[in-house]
Amino acid sequence: MNDVLIIGSVAFDTLRNPVGVFPKELGGSALYASLSASYYAPARLVAVVGRDFPERGVEMLRKRKVDVEGLEVAEGETFHWDGQYTDDLRHRTTLKTELNVFADFKPRLPASYANSPYVLLGNIHPELQLEVLDQIKSPRLVVTDTMNFWIEGQLEALKKVLKRTDVLIVNEEEGRQLAGVEPILKVVHALSAMGPKIVVIKQGEYGAFLFDGREPFSAPAYPVEDLRDPTGAGDSFAGGFLGSIAQQGDLSSSTLRRAMIYGSTMASFCVEATGVAALNRLDRPPIEERFRLFQRMAHVPGSAEVELETTSRQSTAHA
Amino acid sequence: MNDVLIIGSVAFDTLRNPVGVFPKELGGSALYASLSASYYAPARLVAVVGRDFPERGVEMLRKRKVDVEGLEVAEGETFHWDGQYTDDLRHRTTLKTELNVFADFKPRLPASYANSPYVLLGNIHPELQLEVLDQIKSPRLVVTDTMNFWIEGQLEALKKVLKRTDVLIVNEEEGRQLAGVEPILKVVHALSAMGPKIVVIKQGEYGAFLFDGREPFSAPAYPVEDLRDPTGAGDSFAGGFLGSIAQQGDLSSSTLRRAMIYGSTMASFCVEATGVAALNRLDRPPIEERFRLFQRMAHVPGSAEVELETTSRQSTAHA
Repeated sequence: MNDVLIIGSVAFDTLRNPVGVFPKELGGSALYASLSASYYAPARLVAVVGRDFPERGVEMLRKRKVDVEGLEVAEGETFHWDGQYTDDLRHRTTLKTELNVFADFKPRLPASYANSPYVLLGNIHPELQLEVLDQIKSPRLVVTDTMNFWIEGQLEALKKVLKRTDVLIVNEEEGRQLAGVEPILKVVHALSAMGPKIVVIKQGEYGAFLFDGREPFSAPAYPVEDLRDPTGAGDSFAGGFLGSIAQQGDLSSSTLRRAMIYGSTMASFCVEATGVAALNRLDRPPIEERFRLFQRMAHVPGSAEVELETTSRQSTAHA
Repeated sequence: MNDVLIIGSVAFDTLRNPVGVFPKELGGSALYASLSASYYAPARLVAVVGRDFPERGVEMLRKRKVDVEGLEVAEGETFHWDGQYTDDLRHRTTLKTELNVFADFKPRLPASYANSPYVLLGNIHPELQLEVLDQIKSPRLVVTDTMNFWIEGQLEALKKVLKRTDVLIVNEEEGRQLAGVEPILKVVHALSAMGPKIVVIKQGEYGAFLFDGREPFSAPAYPVEDLRDPTGAGDSFAGGFLGSIAQQGDLSSSTLRRAMIYGSTMASFCVEATGVAALNRLDRPPIEERFRLFQRMAHVPGSAEVELETTSRQSTAHA
């Protein structure tokens, strides 16, 4: 029993980038994350769509064996995000956010979801993240994603979520904003003091850091040959990260580090195609091949054996 | 015989940062690089200072056994750079550049330098880099550093240098500017086509990439606990990188990857103190300790053995 429950958005994304305009691609944080997680462990989805959501979207999830019992279909239209990327694909501007059915969404978990051991609280309103947590009996691991929008507007609710969070995933800027300090180690100490004992700092194209009270881990940057669409990279990372932990079933340094690389692997596939196209047609062999590429890319040869700490050091943040 | 010849500036730096104002610190690319390289191999300096350069500067180099026969003392004042850092130390503005004796500098190498096997062409006018190269018989490895200023103003001379360069070290922005393309792999192919078979792309606080026609290597970011002064980080990297290659004496994948980490190690020490203070008082044990920290920080555990390619793949860039 290693199911991964994922709450977040399932949406239409209109993507405007140098390659072209892609109207109403299937997207949303929960769609990306659950497809990504599904390669490692059984995934369960909690989200809402409108009557206009196409059957092929649900079919895509079913094919990946994602449990869609928690995918509510409500009267109205599906959440729609419309965004413009810069020519180098490094920045984006939101042109339109139509919440639609998401505006009144009250997550109601199917009874079968109540015992979910692994929980990914995708990037949505912290109050919704809390409502989901309240419906789960005793999760083994809660991973939380968030963004500047909630840090600025819903800080109190977000802090409640963090108290119940084991792993916080944020990008560097969000981390600094939330912690109110600059140096990355101080950011991590401040964030840990808010609840999560494990902090992942994403640095976009530059890789990611893992801090878990043991020695830090730096996941390598990946030189993408043909960057198409960065949408969903963070969600794919989170899904692969938690899925891989669920598959392994422990929180050893080895499991967490490998989860960072599996997350990075899924994100690297994600950005090579538009929308969820890449996540939709993967298979374990290419995933394992790219994992090993990451592993070789980061390998520092040395005569001395690399021995990782196996026990957590008591740092000020965890005192 | 594994001497490293370093050409660049020896200067006064006035450093203005959140900690305070540090007037006329000893600095310059060649000073940072030669101190850094000196921990690995005998270093030789080619630079010019004015009559106002203090004896303690020369003494500092001698203590590190840097050969200062090539350090010319000219009539006039020493090169002086005056710069203001932003509060987060991530950006800097040049307030003043007084070339002084550097304006008319014509590097004349001592006869004993002509056989230097390892050459670091520090970040100075490409014409000076060429003049130095012309005075060296048959260098085994030429490493070139440059910056946007020369890319914009001295492109033709710089291209001549690149034709005679084995390893180009640039930061990401400079690389894109020089190559005229965005994606990092395309940048590397374009740069390699200009001459250097090995390209190092520095990403500042995010680590660095090495491309040598074999699989890429991603050197990890290092979370600096107490960032004091980023001045000279790039030069310390270059000095440690080439010094470590000279010490090892080959260009195997293992040597190059370890050189990337030794370079990163020296840069990480450099930024923990103001000016050259940290590079001045190091020792091999703390260097080796931090090297191993980098190694552990990047380690991706896995059952499969990591085997690196030992032969160079023929890529389009090297055809």
